Amino acid sequence: MYGKLKKLCCKWNLELPRLGLVLYTFGNVSCADHQKRVFAIKPSGVPYEDLSEDMIVVMDFDGKILDGRLRPSSDAPTHAELYRSFPGLGGIVHTHSTYATAWAQALRDVPLYGTTHADHLATPIPCTEMMADERIRGDYEVETARQIVNTFAKRKLNPAEVQMVLVGGHGPFTWGSTPEKAVYHARVLEELAKMALLTERINPKASPLKKAIVEKHYQRKHGKDAYYGQR
Amino acid sequence: MYGKLKKLCCKWNLELPRLGLVLYTFGNVSCADHQKRVFAIKPSGVPYEDLSEDMIVVMDFDGKILDGRLRPSSDAPTHAELYRSFPGLGGIVHTHSTYATAWAQALRDVPLYGTTHADHLATPIPCTEMMADERIRGDYEVETARQIVNTFAKRKLNPAEVQMVLVGGHGPFTWGSTPEKAVYHARVLEELAKMALLTERINPKASPLKKAIVEKHYQRKHGKDAYYGQR
Amino acid sequence: MYGKLKKLCCKWNLELPRLGLVLYTFGNVSCADHQKRVFAIKPSGVPYEDLSEDMIVVMDFDGKILDGRLRPSSDAPTHAELYRSFPGLGGIVHTHSTYATAWAQALRDVPLYGTTHADHLATPIPCTEMMADERIRGDYEVETARQIVNTFAKRKLNPAEVQMVLVGGHGPFTWGSTPEKAVYHARVLEELAKMALLTERINPKASPLKKAIVEKHYQRKHGKDAYYGQR
Amino acid sequence: MYGKLKKLCCKWNLELPRLGLVLYTFGNVSCADHQKRVFAIKPSGVPYEDLSEDMIVVMDFDGKILDGRLRPSSDAPTHAELYRSFPGLGGIVHTHSTYATAWAQALRDVPLYGTTHADHLATPIPCTEMMADERIRGDYEVETARQIVNTFAKRKLNPAEVQMVLVGGHGPFTWGSTPEKAVYHARVLEELAKMALLTERINPKASPLKKAIVEKHYQRKHGKDAYYGQR
Repeated sequence: MYGKLKKLCCKWNLELPRLGLVLYTFGNVSCADHQKRVFAIKPSGVPYEDLSEDMIVVMDFDGKILDGRLRPSSDAPTHAELYRSFPGLGGIVHTHSTYATAWAQALRDVPLYGTTHADHLATPIPCTEMMADERIRGDYEVETARQIVNTFAKRKLNPAEVQMVLVGGHGPFTWGSTPEKAVYHARVLEELAKMALLTERINPKASPLKKAIVEKHYQRKHGKDAYYGQR
Repeated sequence: MYGKLKKLCCKWNLELPRLGLVLYTFGNVSCADHQKRVFAIKPSGVPYEDLSEDMIVVMDFDGKILDGRLRPSSDAPTHAELYRSFPGLGGIVHTHSTYATAWAQALRDVPLYGTTHADHLATPIPCTEMMADERIRGDYEVETARQIVNTFAKRKLNPAEVQMVLVGGHGPFTWGSTPEKAVYHARVLEELAKMALLTERINPKASPLKKAIVEKHYQRKHGKDAYYGQR
Repeated sequence: MYGKLKKLCCKWNLELPRLGLVLYTFGNVSCADHQKRVFAIKPSGVPYEDLSEDMIVVMDFDGKILDGRLRPSSDAPTHAELYRSFPGLGGIVHTHSTYATAWAQALRDVPLYGTTHADHLATPIPCTEMMADERIRGDYEVETARQIVNTFAKRKLNPAEVQMVLVGGHGPFTWGSTPEKAVYHARVLEELAKMALLTERINPKASPLKKAIVEKHYQRKHGKDAYYGQR
Repeated sequence: MYGKLKKLCCKWNLELPRLGLVLYTFGNVSCADHQKRVFAIKPSGVPYEDLSEDMIVVMDFDGKILDGRLRPSSDAPTHAELYRSFPGLGGIVHTHSTYATAWAQALRDVPLYGTTHADHLATPIPCTEMMADERIRGDYEVETARQIVNTFAKRKLNPAEVQMVLVGGHGPFTWGSTPEKAVYHARVLEELAKMALLTERINPKASPLKKAIVEKHYQRKHGKDAYYGQR
C-alpha cells in the first residue's frame, strides 16, 4: 500500500551520504503524501549502507505508525509536527552537516552575502533561539518543530519561500514541495553556510547583499516572471 | 552545422563538476567561433548529469538563438556582451566555486601573494564594485558584463593578460583563447582564492609578492622569451 | 589460536584510512579479549595497503608478545596500560587525525557546543596536560596512558561514558566496548573537533550547550530509558 | 641506458596527483643516481594524465641533457643545484600544495606544535627569506636552490635531518635518500602545514612543543636506538 512512498523515502535517504551531508546515522529524510496525511521516514539508528525499502516506517501526521517493523527515527515527531504546521511539504530533511551545524552551534543566522544565497531565498537563513528548559524536558522532539514554527511566525517568514532553518545548538532542517527539493535545500544550505563563513574570514566587515540584487536574483528564479530554467 | 561547437561546449561544461567547481546547476561554459561570431552555451537549469550535446544552445554575439530547442543559460547575455567587448575569446566560464565566490562576496580583490598566482597573472584578481540599483533593475545580465568591462577599462587591465574576474556579491567569470583555457582559469582561480585566504590566516600582515619575482614568473611562462612548457 | 582476534584487528585497522583518519602509518587499532587478557595490535610502521592478518601481533595485558613475527606498534605499551586501567575495553584506537590533533596541539579541551557532541558524551572532550620531562624520558609510552588515566581520575570522568581523549601535544585516543565502537568514536571525535573549531570562527563568544539539552540528548541515546536506535 | 631511472621518475611523478599535492602541472619529482651523477626529471608543462616514461628527461648534475626529446621542467636547474649542494639525495620533489604554499606565501616557518611534526624533524620547517632582486633577475632557478642552501647554512640545519623547506613567496621543496621518501615528505609537510594553521586558529597563543618530547619522538624514529618500525 505504501510501497511507492517507502521506495522514494529510501532513495532520498541514500542521497544524503552520497552528498557528504551525513556521517554514520546523523540524519534522516521523510517523504509525505498530503492527501493521505501520511509520511515515510528512515528507521532509527540504521546505518545508511544497511538501509533498504522494507525498513522504512510509515506514520500518519499524528505520529501513529501505519506500516513498518522497525522504530522510526527519534526525530519523527519533529517531522510530524512540521507536516501539521507547514502546509504543502512533500519532504523534510534533517542532517548534522558540518558547516550548517557550526552556524547552529554559534547561534547565528547565516547572513545573505551573495547571489548564490539570493538564488534560493531572499532573507538570512534563520537560526532559532535555544529552547527553554521546561520545553526540552517536555515533549522534546515536538517542541523542536514548535521552536521552528514559532521562529517563522515571530519573524513573519513564509515556509514556502524560506525552506531551510537552523535549530540553535542542534543543526539544520530543510524541506520542499518534494523530497528531491528538500534534499537539494539541505545540500545548498551546507554550501551557503560554508561560503558565509569564508566571506567573514576574508572580510570581517562584509556587508549583506543589497536589496535590489537580492530581489533580482530571487525573482528571476522564483518570481511570477521567472526566466531561469526550462518551463 | 554547429555540431562541433556544441560537442565542445558539452564536453567543457561536464568538466566543471569533475573539477569540483559547481554544485547542481551553479555554472556554465560557452564556446565561441569568432569568424562566425557565434557561441554555444549550456541550457538553463539543466543538471550536469542530464546534459547532452543536443541540448546545447547556439546564439550569435547579439544574443539571437540560432540553434537549440531549450532556453539558454540565463547568463547568456553576459557571455554575449563579453564576446562583443573582449576580442579573441574562445570560451567563457561562470561558476559559483566556493573560495572565489567568498572573495566576491567579501568585495575584495584576491591579492597576489605568491608565484602560483604570478604564473598566471601579474596583478591581483580584480573584484568589481557592486552594481548600481538602476542597472540591476535594467538589463541585469548585460550590465553584469558591462560591470566587468568597465572595471577592466578603469583599472587599465588587458583581458588577454588578466583572464579572471570576480563580480562583486556574485562570483567568478574566467575566459581564454579556448574553452579549455577558460576552464583551466576557473580551476586555477579557485585554488589562488583558497591559498590567499589561508595566507592571510597564517599572517594577517602578509605582503604582496614583490615586483621582480612577479615579473620573472609571469614572463617565464607568458613573455616573449618564455621557457616554460613545450613549444 | 588468535586467528579471530587477528582478523578483527586487521579489519578495523584497515577502516582507518577508509575513513580518512590516517595518513601513511599514523595510527593503530587494537582489539582485546578480556577473558584471556590479551589484545591484538597493528605491527609498527607497516603501511595500511600492505597490512594482512598474519602481520598482526598478539600481546598479553602486561605487554608480553604471545603471537606474531613482527614488532608491535611502538604505542603498544600505551594500549596495554589502558586495558589494565580501564576495565571492559574491547578496542582502542590511536590516530593523528587532522582536527583532533590540532586541538591536542592547542592544548585545549573540545568544548561541548551542540547536540552532535551531546549525542556521544555529556562533557567536553578532555585534553591532557603536557607530560613532565622526567616521565617523557622514562617509560614514555606507558606514561602516555598514565597521563590519560590520571586526567580521568582528576576530573572524575568515567571511561565508560567518556570514550575519547586528546593527549596534549600529541593526538587522540578513543576506545569502546568493541573495536567497531572505538573506531566509530575516532571518526566522531574528528567531526566534533572540526565543528567546534568552525563554531568558534563563526562566533568567538559561542557558549557551551546548556545542561538541559545536553542531558536530553545524552540520555535519549545512552540513558536507561534510551529511545534512539533499534533494541 | 637510463630506463630504470626514467621509470622510477615517472612512477613517483604520478604519485603527486594521486596524493592531492598538485593541480594541473604545478609540481615535479626528480630521481637521482649518485654514482653516475645524473637525475631524471619530469618534462616541462606536461599534464600528469599524459605523462609516460619515454617523456622523462635525464640530465647530469651540471644540468646537461643526456637523454630525452622534451624540454625538462623549468625547475630542473634548482634540482641540479640541490643535488650538487646536498650530498646523498635520491630524489627531490617540488609542489605548490595548498597549505604548504600558504605558509611560504605568509613568509613564516611552520612551528613545531606536536608529535606528528617531531616524528619527522626536530625543528620548525624553515621558510627562506625573499630573494634579492638582482638574484631573481639573474639565474633565477639556480638562485632558488642557493636560497635554500644558504638558509640551511645560516641556520645550521642538516639536510639529512631537515628534509623539507618552504621557499618564501613560492612553495615547498622536499627530498630524501630515495624518491619515495622525498614524495612522502611532500605529503607529510602538507599535513603538518594544515595542522599548524588549525592549531593557531584554536589557540592563537599555542606554544611550540617542549624539547623533551620533541627529542623523544624524533629519536624513537630516527635516533641510533630507534624502535619505531621493522628493522
